[in-house]
Amino acid sequence: MDADVDVIVLGAGPAGENVAGRCADAGLSVIVVERELVGGECSYWGCIPSKTLLRPGEVLAAARRVPGAASAVTGPVDAAAAFARRDWMVGDYSDSSQVPWLVDKGVELVRGTGRLAGPAGRVAVTLLDGTRRVLTASRAVVVATGTRATVPPIPGLADAEPWDNRTATGAWKVPHRLVVLGGGAVGVELAQAFRRLGSAEVTLIEGSPRLLVREEEFVGEQLRAAFEAAGITVRLGSRAVEVRRARTGPDGPAGPVTVTVEPVDPADPADPGEPVERRPRRDAVVADEILVAVGRTPATGDLGLETVGLQPGRFIEVDDRLRAVGVAGDWLYAVGDVCGRALLTHMGKYQARLAADVITGRRDLAGAPVRDLADPAAVPRVTFTDPQVSAVGLTERAAREAGIAVRAVSVPTGSVAGASVRGEEITGTSKIVVDEARRVLVGATFTGPDTQEMVHAATIAIVGEVPLERLWHAVPSFPTVSEVWLRLLEVYG
Amino acid sequence: MDADVDVIVLGAGPAGENVAGRCADAGLSVIVVERELVGGECSYWGCIPSKTLLRPGEVLAAARRVPGAASAVTGPVDAAAAFARRDWMVGDYSDSSQVPWLVDKGVELVRGTGRLAGPAGRVAVTLLDGTRRVLTASRAVVVATGTRATVPPIPGLADAEPWDNRTATGAWKVPHRLVVLGGGAVGVELAQAFRRLGSAEVTLIEGSPRLLVREEEFVGEQLRAAFEAAGITVRLGSRAVEVRRARTGPDGPAGPVTVTVEPVDPADPADPGEPVERRPRRDAVVADEILVAVGRTPATGDLGLETVGLQPGRFIEVDDRLRAVGVAGDWLYAVGDVCGRALLTHMGKYQARLAADVITGRRDLAGAPVRDLADPAAVPRVTFTDPQVSAVGLTERAAREAGIAVRAVSVPTGSVAGASVRGEEITGTSKIVVDEARRVLVGATFTGPDTQEMVHAATIAIVGEVPLERLWHAVPSFPTVSEVWLRLLEVYG
Repeated sequence: MDADVDVIVLGAGPAGENVAGRCADAGLSVIVVERELVGGECSYWGCIPSKTLLRPGEVLAAARRVPGAASAVTGPVDAAAAFARRDWMVGDYSDSSQVPWLVDKGVELVRGTGRLAGPAGRVAVTLLDGTRRVLTASRAVVVATGTRATVPPIPGLADAEPWDNRTATGAWKVPHRLVVLGGGAVGVELAQAFRRLGSAEVTLIEGSPRLLVREEEFVGEQLRAAFEAAGITVRLGSRAVEVRRARTGPDGPAGPVTVTVEPVDPADPADPGEPVERRPRRDAVVADEILVAVGRTPATGDLGLETVGLQPGRFIEVDDRLRAVGVAGDWLYAVGDVCGRALLTHMGKYQARLAADVITGRRDLAGAPVRDLADPAAVPRVTFTDPQVSAVGLTERAAREAGIAVRAVSVPTGSVAGASVRGEEITGTSKIVVDEARRVLVGATFTGPDTQEMVHAATIAIVGEVPLERLWHAVPSFPTVSEVWLRLLEVYG
Repeated sequence: MDADVDVIVLGAGPAGENVAGRCADAGLSVIVVERELVGGECSYWGCIPSKTLLRPGEVLAAARRVPGAASAVTGPVDAAAAFARRDWMVGDYSDSSQVPWLVDKGVELVRGTGRLAGPAGRVAVTLLDGTRRVLTASRAVVVATGTRATVPPIPGLADAEPWDNRTATGAWKVPHRLVVLGGGAVGVELAQAFRRLGSAEVTLIEGSPRLLVREEEFVGEQLRAAFEAAGITVRLGSRAVEVRRARTGPDGPAGPVTVTVEPVDPADPADPGEPVERRPRRDAVVADEILVAVGRTPATGDLGLETVGLQPGRFIEVDDRLRAVGVAGDWLYAVGDVCGRALLTHMGKYQARLAADVITGRRDLAGAPVRDLADPAAVPRVTFTDPQVSAVGLTERAAREAGIAVRAVSVPTGSVAGASVRGEEITGTSKIVVDEARRVLVGATFTGPDTQEMVHAATIAIVGEVPLERLWHAVPSFPTVSEVWLRLLEVYG
């Protein structure tokens, strides 16, 4: 049977778009199947709207730290204007500005739900009108269907009309009281965004003993302190065990939501919380909305994975060339969140570029075949809170657990003159983790206001394996905050 | 004759402090001679006050670009508060907070004017009370006396009470009309600072056809456009030929200053200006103050250089180990502005660290003797205007002139999503200059609001000689402005 096309991509989020575009650039024929909007979770319901909603509060906080500017800031964040900007940034939830990019590259867009259908290269698509179309790819099928918010099995939660990242980033109204389940990146960003947009009460509930528990320990402590200073209630080592939404009648408007909270059980070895006797046993938090941000579930439940020998509902494990492990013939790839490597838009796009190069046989500038060099060694991640959390590579703990002999040094981010000229009370910590044997960085973390552009220097140092004795000659400009690099190398000695 | 000390340092600016401190840390006895304030030009009359005065306008401009924040900014910059913050940042022009750092390291501070006095290691100091003290160093004398503002021989200028960087950064009043001579870093920063602090008329006069003429060509064009949009008059290809300060009487208060301006003469081959017929011949600019920012003169006129065979009034040429060229015995060093390598605080501090390591025999972490690897290949510089100009290494033109086969690529700084979430109308250009043979960066420039922390990544890439095929795996975090790196590498191909 003749194939319809060289490459079929399932999902037109950032990863899907990029693998499709890059394959098309190399001359391959490509079909992308998308059931929602071209641009995906990140563009409409993730990074873009969340960062847009955070930005007004962030920049006003920055101005309030600057004598000479502070008195010029007289108003609060204008939530309506922020929401309007959000709508502009997400193209009013239309993909009409994103589709032309695909079209210009000659990629065919098929709107519908694609599922793997048995033999290598076969995909069955249920179109939006319900009709079915079977497509075959000669070279590759790339799964880029992403993830969706996990809704945990808490009694009453599913019936309480909970917000997820989509509802929250798409809000047109600031809830008076908001409760957030989950202290990961999504939870902390949206908790702060709504507090600064005007929520009077924000309560964040997290089972771990820290916010952003996978980052360096000081990260969670600094975020918690900043949140509490800003009037956000942070409840660590706690979990919601029941959720109940009040109603005025069977079809009446929704009333407030009551969340029953209890300490994480320290008798459970998986629970790293404080001793239980130091916490109240159970109490209730009442809010107007509840946001669920406890994790992501791969969108693989209805993807036909079982027809190729994989298990539905799980992340698709891939090798360093983004090929699905356990599928013969090297025709099935997975990129982006769905491969579970690093659930970050930029890593999805990176994987997409790699996969396209593997599929098209492209080699790098030095003539070598491409493979994933960044994951897990050099995955950067920025949490756009205030203080920002900008990190790359391994934490000190993760490095030690990986068996690397490391020495880590830290300096206060606000200790350099470049921080003082940015404003008063610049807090935060800058830390590098050094592989003592190779004398190269394996991790770095920068917390403080507006550290987002500082992390790429560390990413280049890690990926480039630049030895410390050479890094010493990379002089940070005075007076920038990047002078923490100088202090870090001085402390390292 | 027994020496008094191992090392004598002339000048306690950032370079002098650092060479002294690092020598002392290594166990040497050190004397620093300083006739003004410990901390030097940068701390009291340079980077620190100028950046402090720029910051309020910068952060309010940033807020005005953000829907949701813009309406909260109702006032102008509060100049009095900015000046008060400046006073705090410069320690009220007292070095009482900087001296303890030296003292804690065991460095002896001698307040006075030091001069080289003949044989190796000898320094004569005129103390503040006029008495004379002769000191001898057994290992090294390090000259770190810096530079001062050049006052060009324009008729009437010296008598017109002109401002220099010291007067301007120390101002307690915003002139209604300010004329600035010189479109280098000092001139452009202070022109914008005073415009945003409230000067009604600011005129900047520069002989070159561009502002910041040694940077990439687009830099000067973008700055000019931004300045003109902000109501600053920019007169390129022009020079002041006469300055006259009006007076109300022999001892009366100063009146306005009149600056006669004429086009740079295109018949003079040194003048790269526009054809003269396209410009008016001569006219006058009237202002309340005139700021001279046309360059820096080494503070070596009264340093006893003639006693060691060097010429007074010139920069002290040094080798890669910061030793003065032309002085036998390897005992005389020069660091910071006075060595003329790169007139930037951070480069002075870098040279100071190098010189200290040469003097103390310290080797780098890999066991190699230290030498200057950064200059001129990897000198970073940030001009803290809005748009900021953040650059490192060679411009495309400078690289070609150096005989390097380069290919350069550019993208708009505002083209990435990370710029859009920062606000509306984010302009600027990001450019890399690649050595085609070695496939490494030799230069990079980032213009746009708040690019100051973006340049260190390029500095590390240049100093680390990270090949492009490896840089491709250094993934910028989404949505940061650093994603321009991704676009640049994509355009490079």
